[in-house]
Amino acid sequence: MTENPEYNNWGRWGAEDERGTANLLTGEVVARACRVPTQGRVYNLGIQLRQGAPIAGRRISPVHLMSSDGGDYAALGREDWGTADDYLFLASGGTTHIDALSHLWYGGRMFNGFSFREVRSSGAARCGIEKVGGLLTRGHVLDFVDVQTERAGLIGSADIAAYVRTRGLDIRPGDALLFRTGWMEAALTESLHGRAFPVVDLDAAGWIAEHDIAVVGADNQAVEAVAGRGVLPPLHQVLLRDLGVYLMELLVLAEPARDRVTTGLLIVAPLLITRGVNSPVNPLLVV
Amino acid sequence: MTENPEYNNWGRWGAEDERGTANLLTGEVVARACRVPTQGRVYNLGIQLRQGAPIAGRRISPVHLMSSDGGDYAALGREDWGTADDYLFLASGGTTHIDALSHLWYGGRMFNGFSFREVRSSGAARCGIEKVGGLLTRGHVLDFVDVQTERAGLIGSADIAAYVRTRGLDIRPGDALLFRTGWMEAALTESLHGRAFPVVDLDAAGWIAEHDIAVVGADNQAVEAVAGRGVLPPLHQVLLRDLGVYLMELLVLAEPARDRVTTGLLIVAPLLITRGVNSPVNPLLVV
Amino acid sequence: MTENPEYNNWGRWGAEDERGTANLLTGEVVARACRVPTQGRVYNLGIQLRQGAPIAGRRISPVHLMSSDGGDYAALGREDWGTADDYLFLASGGTTHIDALSHLWYGGRMFNGFSFREVRSSGAARCGIEKVGGLLTRGHVLDFVDVQTERAGLIGSADIAAYVRTRGLDIRPGDALLFRTGWMEAALTESLHGRAFPVVDLDAAGWIAEHDIAVVGADNQAVEAVAGRGVLPPLHQVLLRDLGVYLMELLVLAEPARDRVTTGLLIVAPLLITRGVNSPVNPLLVV
Amino acid sequence: MTENPEYNNWGRWGAEDERGTANLLTGEVVARACRVPTQGRVYNLGIQLRQGAPIAGRRISPVHLMSSDGGDYAALGREDWGTADDYLFLASGGTTHIDALSHLWYGGRMFNGFSFREVRSSGAARCGIEKVGGLLTRGHVLDFVDVQTERAGLIGSADIAAYVRTRGLDIRPGDALLFRTGWMEAALTESLHGRAFPVVDLDAAGWIAEHDIAVVGADNQAVEAVAGRGVLPPLHQVLLRDLGVYLMELLVLAEPARDRVTTGLLIVAPLLITRGVNSPVNPLLVV
Repeated sequence: MTENPEYNNWGRWGAEDERGTANLLTGEVVARACRVPTQGRVYNLGIQLRQGAPIAGRRISPVHLMSSDGGDYAALGREDWGTADDYLFLASGGTTHIDALSHLWYGGRMFNGFSFREVRSSGAARCGIEKVGGLLTRGHVLDFVDVQTERAGLIGSADIAAYVRTRGLDIRPGDALLFRTGWMEAALTESLHGRAFPVVDLDAAGWIAEHDIAVVGADNQAVEAVAGRGVLPPLHQVLLRDLGVYLMELLVLAEPARDRVTTGLLIVAPLLITRGVNSPVNPLLVV
Repeated sequence: MTENPEYNNWGRWGAEDERGTANLLTGEVVARACRVPTQGRVYNLGIQLRQGAPIAGRRISPVHLMSSDGGDYAALGREDWGTADDYLFLASGGTTHIDALSHLWYGGRMFNGFSFREVRSSGAARCGIEKVGGLLTRGHVLDFVDVQTERAGLIGSADIAAYVRTRGLDIRPGDALLFRTGWMEAALTESLHGRAFPVVDLDAAGWIAEHDIAVVGADNQAVEAVAGRGVLPPLHQVLLRDLGVYLMELLVLAEPARDRVTTGLLIVAPLLITRGVNSPVNPLLVV
Repeated sequence: MTENPEYNNWGRWGAEDERGTANLLTGEVVARACRVPTQGRVYNLGIQLRQGAPIAGRRISPVHLMSSDGGDYAALGREDWGTADDYLFLASGGTTHIDALSHLWYGGRMFNGFSFREVRSSGAARCGIEKVGGLLTRGHVLDFVDVQTERAGLIGSADIAAYVRTRGLDIRPGDALLFRTGWMEAALTESLHGRAFPVVDLDAAGWIAEHDIAVVGADNQAVEAVAGRGVLPPLHQVLLRDLGVYLMELLVLAEPARDRVTTGLLIVAPLLITRGVNSPVNPLLVV
Repeated sequence: MTENPEYNNWGRWGAEDERGTANLLTGEVVARACRVPTQGRVYNLGIQLRQGAPIAGRRISPVHLMSSDGGDYAALGREDWGTADDYLFLASGGTTHIDALSHLWYGGRMFNGFSFREVRSSGAARCGIEKVGGLLTRGHVLDFVDVQTERAGLIGSADIAAYVRTRGLDIRPGDALLFRTGWMEAALTESLHGRAFPVVDLDAAGWIAEHDIAVVGADNQAVEAVAGRGVLPPLHQVLLRDLGVYLMELLVLAEPARDRVTTGLLIVAPLLITRGVNSPVNPLLVV
């Protein structure tokens, strides 16, 4: 794939910018998003972190271990008081997570032209997740379970346009799209076998770019189809690297879908992992 | 310390409740908190996760390791494209974190009367952090740097009352108090040595209980004084265990303090660690 | 299962002993074992530590991560010099390992009568692996691949006796038995499916006890059949807890079997994990 | 430092060799080493793996966590039976360890001319520790505590020669030298402050090369002086990279020194970490 001159945000926020479409979340956009909730209902879009949870790719699921617990006090016959503490070992991308803009590159360059050589064992010296910080914006749930797409199983620009029009969604610059495909619910109930789920297709990039979407998430492993070895996922290329759009994977969207939520206040609060290329998150959607 | 009959929320939200003061964050409270921001300015209250960062107690600071990076591609002479991925190993309480209500107990019982025996190597079967989910409420910054307290170095009920009155803060049930003591800024600049910082005192529990505060945080290691070995921190006892109030530690409050922020929308989105007794968080304060 | 009065080494090496049959490895036994090798050929009986390697039970396979590597220097264009360093995260029992005597108990007591309450989140205060240290003894390879056992698939005392007699093995107190079943080779080549492999049966405990065997290992997950949930593996009970015999699992015995090795100098050098209940090891067999 | 034409083993064991001086440990050498022990006394030269143990450089000390323990059963009131299991997170070089030959390079090449580019996030494709396997050889304890060296604090070739001559040590190709400096005992008793300990100097490389020593270890952090940032330790360069000699650090030599052990059977059994650049070990010395 060659560079895409039409869909490109390099330089848009200055030559030193490492935050991409996070720049679209101006004070005005954030303040407006905060006015969306009327019921004050909070949806947690993260999956539980535990061994055996669904993961993306060949990563491992999180390992949770206790360094102190009630059992220790029980064993000592100290029935009175105590404290508990715990440790976590995880692949940052092995649970619900947000990709930093340093997660991927092509043509030797990540978003805004920074060299891939900035990403070493010490982490990403450019476009690390600690540069992003909390994101607040309007998030729209696009529920493609039981929606017929133009090309079977592939969600493209025309499908998004039709969906938005039919539901009367009000899309503005800086907004987030959260795609529900049904994959996560199947993964959590171990009923993936033999079933197919729609994925967001490269063709969707046009619509996303034209509407200045800032964040794209999905309830599956890679938003788009899981890439084979030796293949760089094409939608990731355009979104993360050309446009500086943030991707979130492994979302749980069953509850907002059940409640027929269309638009809410989306909050993503990445851990400020120094030079991190991903962060586990529990995104919130508030209506 | 004996049980405190005046300050106790056991049974208030039912015998099976595991969420404590998170119950105060009703739809109405959340919706009202979302109306606080007017500028749309977002403060990240988490510290960066990296080796050597300030920690609480004898925990270790987070270890961040890359499982794939640009260096790998450079070494292979594959200048074109690639992806980066990372791992994290951390003490859940060894960075900015929220305590689950299962973090501490006395009299053999944690919040709402659940047995400490529910907390084992498999984690907390009761009051685990995955039961809490995202918290949105109004958060007030109480900046006690350069404030004279009644008893030197100890922030008590009278001090909070005076602070609130003087600044004209509007405190309501479900609100959060975020204490700035100066400790974190000193820790981050390695200038802790030989200096003293105020701490929140057990005496503050009365004011907190009477005002139905839901979350108490501070920019230090334990909100209150760091307990010695064999001592259960007394304020933790009342807040976490008697009242079901959430505690957050190792906050960074320098920026909101610099901007003289008093009240904002506080957002805490714990990772849904199955049976976790803490979660690392990057709390957001939005004004 | 009730306690076994006939096969029991409690008190044999004193009331405070935490080393069990490691006591059989006297200077004389060790010196004699060192005289076994004549060719100086060294077999490594450990499997490789890597993600996806065969494991025992529901543990995870080891995760190996680099904190510094050549790629970093390549990315920096520093072609001259550099160093590499790495990290390891592992379930101590998730690769070739030796069980400490604190790994299992029944009747509320582990080997030599120590209470199970000595094993807490801080590890095993009694019978920890750091008390064991290096073990040197004569090790015999008992290759039961293609050997007909009395009861199909179960290796019992009579089978061992017959094997030893037929091959003319010279068994002495303190010796080690290393059972080859073929499981590991099938696991490493992913050909486990639909195949059955022999396991050492509880019935073997008698022969092991009567011959004062110090160490029993196998090329499978649990020496004996993998126990279901809620079942304490019966051979483990007698060997670890009643007799203080050490168990090693996930051995690779293909090479010594190929070379028809019968007896060699077995060397096990556990990491001195403070209060550890297992240790990963790369046991050596020297002939 | 430029390449050293006099002290160089590249190509000596073939162009594809990844084992360096491990090749000196022929069957004859191993068999002969096994004949050294007469008393059968086993010394464990590894330190205990625990948080807070002495480490090398800026690594972290090992973290040991329990995934199941007696406390869990005590908490459940299941006094009868149970099992314990544990996890380990460690910097491979953060405890007693052996360096793989891939640990260091200069002139763009590691031992035997392999490119430093072979060492990436996936580990060392060349000269990984899993290629080494168990090492058995004669090990000599050189106790330089209270020994006057020619240049104060620096152990050079003349010092080794004098030590060997005075004590009548019989040094042969493939042997190991284990230097005691007193550092470890001071570190373990927290009495390092203000004290100086001898280190092995670059000058020692000549003697080591001329005598075809296979393994060099010490009871300190780096055998030689700890290098500053931006400096490649010069003795490491010659030993690991030019000669393919293995280095071991953080040994505990107090006990063999106390017993005035001079020569024993040294056994090093690295974990077969796939592509590892170090391995934690508990080396054994048997007399």
